[in-house]
Amino acid sequence: METTLNFTINNLWMMVSIALVFIMHLGFSTLEVGLARSKNAINILFKNFMIVAIGLLTFAICGFNLMYPGGDFSVFNFSGFGISLPENGLTVDYNGSFTYWTDFLFQGMFAATAATIVSGAVAERIKLGSFLIFSLFYVGVVYPIIGSWGWGGGFLSQMGFYDFAGSTFVHSVGGWAAVVAVILLGPRLGKYLSDGSIKPIVGHNIPLAALGVFLLWFGWFGFNGGSVLSADAGTVSLVLVTTSLAASAGIIAAFVTSYLKFKTYDITMAFNGALAGLVGITAGADLMSPLDAIIIGFISGVIIVFAVGIIDRFKMDDPVGAIGVHLICGTFGTLAVGIWGDKGLFNTGSFSQLGTQAYGVMVVGITCLVTSFIILFTLKKTIGLRVSEKEEKQGLDIHEHGMNAYEDINLNDNE
Amino acid sequence: METTLNFTINNLWMMVSIALVFIMHLGFSTLEVGLARSKNAINILFKNFMIVAIGLLTFAICGFNLMYPGGDFSVFNFSGFGISLPENGLTVDYNGSFTYWTDFLFQGMFAATAATIVSGAVAERIKLGSFLIFSLFYVGVVYPIIGSWGWGGGFLSQMGFYDFAGSTFVHSVGGWAAVVAVILLGPRLGKYLSDGSIKPIVGHNIPLAALGVFLLWFGWFGFNGGSVLSADAGTVSLVLVTTSLAASAGIIAAFVTSYLKFKTYDITMAFNGALAGLVGITAGADLMSPLDAIIIGFISGVIIVFAVGIIDRFKMDDPVGAIGVHLICGTFGTLAVGIWGDKGLFNTGSFSQLGTQAYGVMVVGITCLVTSFIILFTLKKTIGLRVSEKEEKQGLDIHEHGMNAYEDINLNDNE
Amino acid sequence: METTLNFTINNLWMMVSIALVFIMHLGFSTLEVGLARSKNAINILFKNFMIVAIGLLTFAICGFNLMYPGGDFSVFNFSGFGISLPENGLTVDYNGSFTYWTDFLFQGMFAATAATIVSGAVAERIKLGSFLIFSLFYVGVVYPIIGSWGWGGGFLSQMGFYDFAGSTFVHSVGGWAAVVAVILLGPRLGKYLSDGSIKPIVGHNIPLAALGVFLLWFGWFGFNGGSVLSADAGTVSLVLVTTSLAASAGIIAAFVTSYLKFKTYDITMAFNGALAGLVGITAGADLMSPLDAIIIGFISGVIIVFAVGIIDRFKMDDPVGAIGVHLICGTFGTLAVGIWGDKGLFNTGSFSQLGTQAYGVMVVGITCLVTSFIILFTLKKTIGLRVSEKEEKQGLDIHEHGMNAYEDINLNDNE
Repeated sequence: METTLNFTINNLWMMVSIALVFIMHLGFSTLEVGLARSKNAINILFKNFMIVAIGLLTFAICGFNLMYPGGDFSVFNFSGFGISLPENGLTVDYNGSFTYWTDFLFQGMFAATAATIVSGAVAERIKLGSFLIFSLFYVGVVYPIIGSWGWGGGFLSQMGFYDFAGSTFVHSVGGWAAVVAVILLGPRLGKYLSDGSIKPIVGHNIPLAALGVFLLWFGWFGFNGGSVLSADAGTVSLVLVTTSLAASAGIIAAFVTSYLKFKTYDITMAFNGALAGLVGITAGADLMSPLDAIIIGFISGVIIVFAVGIIDRFKMDDPVGAIGVHLICGTFGTLAVGIWGDKGLFNTGSFSQLGTQAYGVMVVGITCLVTSFIILFTLKKTIGLRVSEKEEKQGLDIHEHGMNAYEDINLNDNE
Repeated sequence: METTLNFTINNLWMMVSIALVFIMHLGFSTLEVGLARSKNAINILFKNFMIVAIGLLTFAICGFNLMYPGGDFSVFNFSGFGISLPENGLTVDYNGSFTYWTDFLFQGMFAATAATIVSGAVAERIKLGSFLIFSLFYVGVVYPIIGSWGWGGGFLSQMGFYDFAGSTFVHSVGGWAAVVAVILLGPRLGKYLSDGSIKPIVGHNIPLAALGVFLLWFGWFGFNGGSVLSADAGTVSLVLVTTSLAASAGIIAAFVTSYLKFKTYDITMAFNGALAGLVGITAGADLMSPLDAIIIGFISGVIIVFAVGIIDRFKMDDPVGAIGVHLICGTFGTLAVGIWGDKGLFNTGSFSQLGTQAYGVMVVGITCLVTSFIILFTLKKTIGLRVSEKEEKQGLDIHEHGMNAYEDINLNDNE
Repeated sequence: METTLNFTINNLWMMVSIALVFIMHLGFSTLEVGLARSKNAINILFKNFMIVAIGLLTFAICGFNLMYPGGDFSVFNFSGFGISLPENGLTVDYNGSFTYWTDFLFQGMFAATAATIVSGAVAERIKLGSFLIFSLFYVGVVYPIIGSWGWGGGFLSQMGFYDFAGSTFVHSVGGWAAVVAVILLGPRLGKYLSDGSIKPIVGHNIPLAALGVFLLWFGWFGFNGGSVLSADAGTVSLVLVTTSLAASAGIIAAFVTSYLKFKTYDITMAFNGALAGLVGITAGADLMSPLDAIIIGFISGVIIVFAVGIIDRFKMDDPVGAIGVHLICGTFGTLAVGIWGDKGLFNTGSFSQLGTQAYGVMVVGITCLVTSFIILFTLKKTIGLRVSEKEEKQGLDIHEHGMNAYEDINLNDNE
């Protein structure tokens, strides 16, 4: 009976976490819409909305079995009870802490995140159809296979590579693909001028972007908190503390750094600082003391301000700063586990742990670069990746969706 | 002690569900505002905001006792402890799983939903006062009496009629009244032209509508998850899985169907597809396998695309597609219990279950049509249902509320 | 083992409450942005976003130890485990119900609220830097010291002063400082005309404001529900019921009162009515019957309509009505504990309880007035409190942040 109660409590916390991770998809959507131009708002919403459906369905069809091998690998199976309900009742124990259903849905909500990260980087110029096909393969196949190396008991976890909630397995998986996509797509028209200067393309709805950042933080309580995979009071509450302090320190760091650099209070940098801190802490949120978390968050917040500038100097046009936040801070966070995370958990010293972390980052990076290149390059050479110049100028909404996001509201050109 | 812990856990999940169902009211509000014109935005928000207050207060005064008879029927009583706190302490056990307070609030949050559904269909032309009076009676009296037939131990539940979380008792109750209201009100000016053509009236803020759909899905975790009425790990997590997969399949189905039909990526159809899937699974979310859920969601998503067109052809002007989503998909979902839901739960075969489900749909439908007609027709003949032509043209905000929703923002006419 | 399970359940509910209180910061942000003019939207978002970071970090550095003395008082300590993780494992029991981490984060989320309340009152004219410095001291030092008198076992709690979730310790602490700030700052340009008339300055995005109110109510389930400091089924669910009924009654009361007074359906008054009811019930949400809660909410809703008018007549320019909602209704709610709250909890009669409540209100009020005056007056005489006339007219966004909130959207002057 005690076991049952414990099972119920753990499962309950995981279900709360599912809802929180779900709402991150709204956060990603509104952040991205807010930082883009109004003429592409519907297109962005459409992508982010479809990704949730594609993510959950592909995860049901094959992703879940690819990521957590052990049952059989048949399509739409998840260990035998996907098609019909199990005869022995619904409470099918997955790991002593929650049910298979819970695990499927929590992991499925994660899966869609990887594609959503790419979505921000390719906004305002990618063909909707191509993006959806890319997502189908990347979320349905690439993401779960890579994830299985760490979270499904694969070789990276056996080596001691540690990634608590996905700085590498989620955020950098999205980030690496974003790099490939941004290069293959090229920058938005008018972003990099022939005289070598860079024209900032300003977002059209900052309150909407703010909504996105708050919701992402809110959702991160489930993203990191749920990754404990139980309701264990000490660990989960520590994780919520380190997560929140890292986000806070990221805000302060990005605020100070960007003020020193640009002499203005740049709100998009404050937003990025919060996200940088959140991504940075994610790999080791359960291993850090509050002070460690503040240090990691602060460094992430400094990194992001420089990262955004450097990425721009390479003429990689990333409208929402996704590469800086998810790839660079995700990588930093993964390495940070080797630096600050040695809490008696690793039987190796922290120097060798740092090496293991770097090795994991590299293996995942190469895999993502290769697979996303294959998918995206194939799409580019067949149906094409990019919308026409006319469509890009007039906006994707009116061309692909036959609608304006704000029918009654007078808009001006923001090219 | 074990019983107490179990009680606390169940009650905790129900309280989380209460918060989630509450936030659905924000989802309904922003969806409806986003799909209407800016000149009526405040009016819509006002209606949806007032409904929460009216719903909870009428449920306290009489609805709760009407819906769950058993104590006495005195006004504002809920079984004797509405007016003063019980002397024997606060933990008044309702059903072995949670307290009376919890039950009251969970059910009260549901009650307001029925009126909110109507709100969408009558938007942009109904008199605020008439709508509030209608809500008062419909939520305070009609909804709980019908609900008592199924969830209060009444004749429909005794017959074996099954409606898990309210495809019929909530969604179709709102939907039937929406039909009556739309007919009695007539279409918005300029919607159906004299040459027989239909002029689409486009929503003014699609990001706001997207926010609404995401929040509704988010809230549905509590709407369906809480309807288990316990934190039972297996059942609740299955319900979250079937709910999410049905929504996902609804999106894909509506996307594909509308693309085939209209050759465009219509985001409002993708939104409707999600909601259709959610409403469709609601009657049997605890009885379906993941595959069943996908089938039901997919069919709902196909249905909604055709339903919206057909309702329009009957010149029933429903600005947000409420009738299609809540009535038609709610009815389909209720019948689907008889087709896919036979999981050893019914001692009757599924054919006879289908008959029982159809009977319940019919009884509820007739009751709603008659009662909502009486209320609305009385209002029409006394204080009137519809605003003046001038008011409708200039917008309800400036006339009824003396304000604009977007004071600083330049708007154009969108008649 | 039973103790452990109970501990886990209580801790789980507190973690859910943390997430809910966090999202209130989004609610405050969007409410304030929506009720202000578009030219200051980024500035407002910036303030409210930074406050979360400042609140959590100062609470980690000193606030938590100031508020809950008992361990040692060293900076960034929280009882010895802020800097390194405790060797004896993570589950450091705080009070038999949840961990230190949980307590820190829940209380830290509260702390930031006090400054956010001030933010609304000073909107559209305060210098960003001055506001942030004020927040640093007010949230980091003043708030926790005052809080310790009631919630940290200090003299007010020993006297029997009762403030369940912070009508006084949170809301009035913010409200008193708002009074001082509004007086020292002076009204916005053009608000009070030379002929003695008052020019209403209308908010620019009412849907955004509505989002804020809904989210605040949503978050209040955690604000009040979490203040039970356990998952006790009876008490928490009663608190959710009284909280929701008070909000509902506040809406109806403000709706009716403002309609009788102004003959229009004023949506900002309906919003304020909800918040008034929520603030009003907060001091005694666990002591009231449903009927008491409705009475308290209703009175709060009536009060707020008159309060807003009276504050305006004193030429105190409070753009969002923060003083009326948080100070006046917070004070009423605290006194209401002495009137309706005598449920056998107090060994004194309710008259003497009313005196104790009034005494607490007075002590807190004087302390807040003095401390906030010292901080704000020092700022005024050094770096200055208020932006230049030019900056105020053109908007703080373009001057302090170099950006527009709505780059693509055509705006008109709304001075």
